[in-house]
Parts: sequence; structure tokens; C-alpha cells
Amino acid sequence: MNEVISAATRRLDRYPRSAEWFCDFRYYDVSGLGVEDGVHRRDPSSVIEVDGTFHVWYTKSTGVAEGFAAGDDAKVFPWDRSEVWHATSTDGLTWIETDRALGAGEPGSYDDRSVFTPEVLHHEGRFYLVYQVVASPYRLRSKESIAIAWADDPAGPWTRSPHPILRPAEGGEWLGDEDNHLQVVHTGPFDSLKVHDPLLLPFGGRFHLYYKGEQMAEKFAGGGRATRWGVAIADAPEGPYERSPLNPITNSGHETCLWLHADGVAALLTTDGPERNTVQFARDGQNFEIMAHLADPPVAAGPFREERPTVRGLDGLRWGLSHDVTGPWHYIRGFAADERRKDLYAAGSPPELADLSSPPPGAPGAATP
Amino acid sequence: MNEVISAATRRLDRYPRSAEWFCDFRYYDVSGLGVEDGVHRRDPSSVIEVDGTFHVWYTKSTGVAEGFAAGDDAKVFPWDRSEVWHATSTDGLTWIETDRALGAGEPGSYDDRSVFTPEVLHHEGRFYLVYQVVASPYRLRSKESIAIAWADDPAGPWTRSPHPILRPAEGGEWLGDEDNHLQVVHTGPFDSLKVHDPLLLPFGGRFHLYYKGEQMAEKFAGGGRATRWGVAIADAPEGPYERSPLNPITNSGHETCLWLHADGVAALLTTDGPERNTVQFARDGQNFEIMAHLADPPVAAGPFREERPTVRGLDGLRWGLSHDVTGPWHYIRGFAADERRKDLYAAGSPPELADLSSPPPGAPGAATP
Repeated sequence: MNEVISAATRRLDRYPRSAEWFCDFRYYDVSGLGVEDGVHRRDPSSVIEVDGTFHVWYTKSTGVAEGFAAGDDAKVFPWDRSEVWHATSTDGLTWIETDRALGAGEPGSYDDRSVFTPEVLHHEGRFYLVYQVVASPYRLRSKESIAIAWADDPAGPWTRSPHPILRPAEGGEWLGDEDNHLQVVHTGPFDSLKVHDPLLLPFGGRFHLYYKGEQMAEKFAGGGRATRWGVAIADAPEGPYERSPLNPITNSGHETCLWLHADGVAALLTTDGPERNTVQFARDGQNFEIMAHLADPPVAAGPFREERPTVRGLDGLRWGLSHDVTGPWHYIRGFAADERRKDLYAAGSPPELADLSSPPPGAPGAATP
Repeated sequence: MNEVISAATRRLDRYPRSAEWFCDFRYYDVSGLGVEDGVHRRDPSSVIEVDGTFHVWYTKSTGVAEGFAAGDDAKVFPWDRSEVWHATSTDGLTWIETDRALGAGEPGSYDDRSVFTPEVLHHEGRFYLVYQVVASPYRLRSKESIAIAWADDPAGPWTRSPHPILRPAEGGEWLGDEDNHLQVVHTGPFDSLKVHDPLLLPFGGRFHLYYKGEQMAEKFAGGGRATRWGVAIADAPEGPYERSPLNPITNSGHETCLWLHADGVAALLTTDGPERNTVQFARDGQNFEIMAHLADPPVAAGPFREERPTVRGLDGLRWGLSHDVTGPWHYIRGFAADERRKDLYAAGSPPELADLSSPPPGAPGAATP
């Protein structure tokens, strides 16, 4: 037995040995939601199927984001002055943008500036959209909240909650009156400035509202932006929601992506933090452990989500929509989990020599097994 | 004080809090080493400067890789039947492929099939290339070794070592005679099948030969391929090299990328394993700790390397060459570390609104400060 081991080998027991949750990802363009000059489409919800038709909701806005320096009449971010739109598809590849689900609210309302980053839940015959809201004026110190709307049909009409169902946490205190989000007396909790990217799951008989928190005077760290996720829990979809005392429940991640798996909740974390690009699982929905480190996972993923929990965890990422925000106009594209390289490897066949350009099994457009 | 914390928060102390080593990466095409139909160029060495001229060495081969099923006369991998070539540049952007540094050896020699993945060291007036070698026939069970060549000028002529300077470790045992690399009686050490991707650094008065090990019957794990790095140490560049008792010294990574930093050694790990996409540092050159988790780092990076240690760690990744192997013909492109987004963030200015399309400071083509 070798007692002399390196620091790296000493860390090895932190990491999952099983490749069960490991996969690659393939990306493909979808029609109807792709690049369009002058239009941002981003932040797709999970995809759900209703009577043989796939549905997705997403953030849509038009025009160039000019930044805060351009004044209160400008559009400051691509997700500013946004609306929530709805598209349908029968094959996951060709999408038709059918209707606007939600626009900004009346002047003076809590959502009069922008509504964005929707997620959907189909539960007991009713459809729920949870989404972000921001009120005018939009400044660096603006707090952002989460609201809910419900409808009996995916095409609406949608009824909005009279108030946000989750607001940023209390406890932070700004220093001075300048619109500078880094100047604070107290930062407050991890979600003191913004609650973002909500996702609603019925779990353990209660409604779990997962969200990304941003903190007043949020810092960069060795893993990038220090965004983390929390969860708030209620007995009814409309609330009232109470934050979990375990918050924050992640130390990484940007847009939320979670699904019911087995007797717990699975999550895909991307973009920010040291556990960026991991898939995680929490039997209690709150104490997440890393299942696999993934290469190049979909950003802002909205996977196809069935109402029953997945049996194989990766089926929660089998295919779906994600966004590409690297160009001037943000757009939505498809993704699919691909286990073929892993399977080839396990079979002793060098995956470098395989043609993996066709859609993987289970993806839209894949050959039927 | 909140005693109720989540599993994720409990892990938080594993991760670096400082953003000192965190950066983004930008990529750019370089002329002379870009896509060329029918030709693979890949695995660039570190870039060195000699009398005002930049030099790089890399793997070059021609023709389609047909796989092992095509028989012993075929080219089985893009790095099979390869040679080591040399290019120069005065600006890092325009490269001229000047000469073949090394071809395959005479039939029957230890390197008669392919020479590839070179790295360079300029030390006390002499140039050293360390590289991989494989002998014919190339089979799934072929062992791959590391050799060295030296010259008094970057253009050669190169003198080869009479034998490899590092061979795969003893201790593994195949099961049966079929050419199947998964069938073993014993796997042996982490580097029992192949020693790959050598990189030579003078450190602490001795020569440290870093390399990637592949194991007989290597497995996939939750972080992907289970490749790890080792180091072998000698008093002279030509050897004899003795493996460190601490091996393996990483639990992740594919192509090696290391440089002298302060009083130790820094490393960029990519592609494989749970610590894929981290930059690490070891004061003793062997016990590496994670300094930052990086997004989208260069694969097979050959950074511009000065002979003196870096003072700021990220200066070891300021710019260089990497490869893109996603298309049918592998090619070499440029990369540059970019700290602008981090700097904007720290200054309170949303980086989403900045135009970061120009080369970052310190990159080829960047505006002079």
C-alpha cells in the first residue's frame, strides 16, 4: 500500500466514480426560434407535452440594449422591456411562435418594466408560469422579484398574482445614494438584491420554488460570479412561500434547471461558480451532491420534462431547448444528451473514430431504435 | 450564526475565494496554421521567443484516419503517421511553417510509426523537444513512450535520444491475446498503457518531465475519461528519469500545460476528469491545489512561455496557440486570457454591456497600453 499520495489523489474521493450521470451534449438549430435580427429570444422554459404537442415559453424582446448610462428611457439589458412568449411544436425541431403569454404590467405595477425567464408547471389540469419581474425605473440597484400566473390552457388567458410571490431577502443595506450596487453597509443574504430564474416543482407534497439569488455587492471568486440558488416552499402554487433555512442550496450555477428524479430532485448547474457544469441530485430536494462533471452543457437549459420523475437521471436532459447569447441577437437552439461516446469507450472502441454527427438516441430527429 | 447549512455550503471551503487566477478566454484564427483540407495540425508546443522571433512545434499529419479495423497499413488516428513540424512568427498572428523537425524513425526503431505532441525547452543555449513515439504496428494495446531530441538551433538539426526517456509503467497484465485494451488481469499503475503529452521544465535544480498517463482498461468516471498526470525527474534533460512516488499528481486533465510560476509550478487542466477546466499551482511542483475554475479554456494549450517564472499566474496563459479538433481536419488557432469581464465586474459595470470583441491586453493584435 502506497502511503505517499499527492494532494490531487487525496481529493479524489470527493468526486463521483460512476459514469452513470456523465454524457456529452449535441446542439442543433430549431426553426421558428433561431437567430432573427433585431429580436432576442432566450431563457426557454422546460418543454412540456400536452395532448401530443410540445410547448415552451421564453423571454422575448426587441431592440439593442444600451446600458444604464443611456438613461431611464433606454433598454438597459437584452432582458429589459421583455415579454413572455409561447411556441409549440410537434417534433421538437420546428417551432411556431403562437402567442404572447405575458407582457409588462400597467404603469405603476410591480411588473411594469419587464417580465422574463419563465418556467412552466402543468399540475392537476392547470398551467402555471413563474417568471421574473422588474419595475421601472431599471437601475443598477433595482431589486428583482418573482411572480406567478396561471391558466387553464397553454394558450392562456393568464391570470397574474396580485403581488410577487418572492422578493429579494431583507438584511442588506446600501451605502450612500449613488446607483452603485457594490457600495453597501451590509451585503445581506445571498439573495438580497435579486431573485431570478424561478422554477416550480411539486415535491414531497409541497411546492418548491427554486431560484437564483444575487447579492448586494456580489463578488467574483475563483469560480467566476458567485451566484447561488435558493428554494422557497409553499402549500399552494400561489404561495405564501417561505425560504428554506438551508439556503443557499448551491454554491454555483446561473439559470435554474431542475427535474424530479426517483425520490428526489436533480439539477444541472452551469455558467457560474466552481461547480459550474455539474449535474447534482438531492434526495430531499435541498442537500445537493455532485453526480457528474459535464463538458459543454446547455446554458439556460429547458429540457423536455415529463410529469413523472425520471428513472434514469440523464433522461431529464435527454433533449430540450437552450439559448445562445454569444452573438448580438440572442436565440434559442436545441440540445440533446449524448451517451454514445461513453458507451463506445466502455465497449473498447475508440470514440475518436466514430461519426457522432447524427442525433443521439432519444433526441428529436434521431432514428427510431 | 446559522448552524443549518446545506450540503453545498458545507463544500464551499474547498473552492478558491480569490478571483486572482480567474479569467475568460478569447480565440482567434492565425494564418499559416489554420484549417487545410487533407492536413491535421494539432498539439502545439508552448511558444518561445528567440531573438525576437516566436517559435512553435506541433503534430502534423496528412490523410484520413481510418481506425484499427482498417488494418496495419492504415492510418488509425489523426496523430498516427505524424511528424513534428516547426513554424515561426514575429507577431503571434502570422505563422510560417518553416521545416520538419522530426519524422518517424527508421523501420524497426522505437519511433518508426509516429512522432507527435511535441513540447519545447530552451535551456542553457540548447533546444530540447520532448514528444510521444509509437512503433509499428499500431494496435489498441500498443504502448506509447516519450522521447527527446536536442539541437543548437530552433531549425535543427535534431539529435534523437537512442531510446525513449520514459516508457509506460510496469505492473499491468493483459488477459488473453485479443487486441482489446479493456481485457486485463491487472490494470497496473495509472500510466501502464501510455505515457503521453510530455512537457519538460527545469525546476528546483532538476528536470521535471510532466506527462499524461493512460491505464490499461482505463475507465470512464463521473468526470469523463480517467486520465491523470505524472512527473518523472532527472538531473539532465536526457535522463535517466525516475517517476515521482507521489504519482499520479492530478486526478484530471488531458494534454499537459504547465509553466514556472513564482517559486512553484502552475498548470492548466482541461478536457477530462472532475477537475477539468481548472488552473492549479504546486509550490513543490507535485502537490497541486486548485486556484480557479475556468470557463472554456484552450484545449492542448501551448501558451507563450518566458524562461523566467511568471509573477502573476495568469501571465502564463496570456496568449498562445491551441487546437480545434471538432472538424474533420484539426487545426491550430490562437487564444488569449481575458480579465476584462472580471475587471468590469469588480468596478461595478455590467460586463454584459461591454464590447469585448477586441483582443484583450497582452494578446497579439491588442492595442498598446
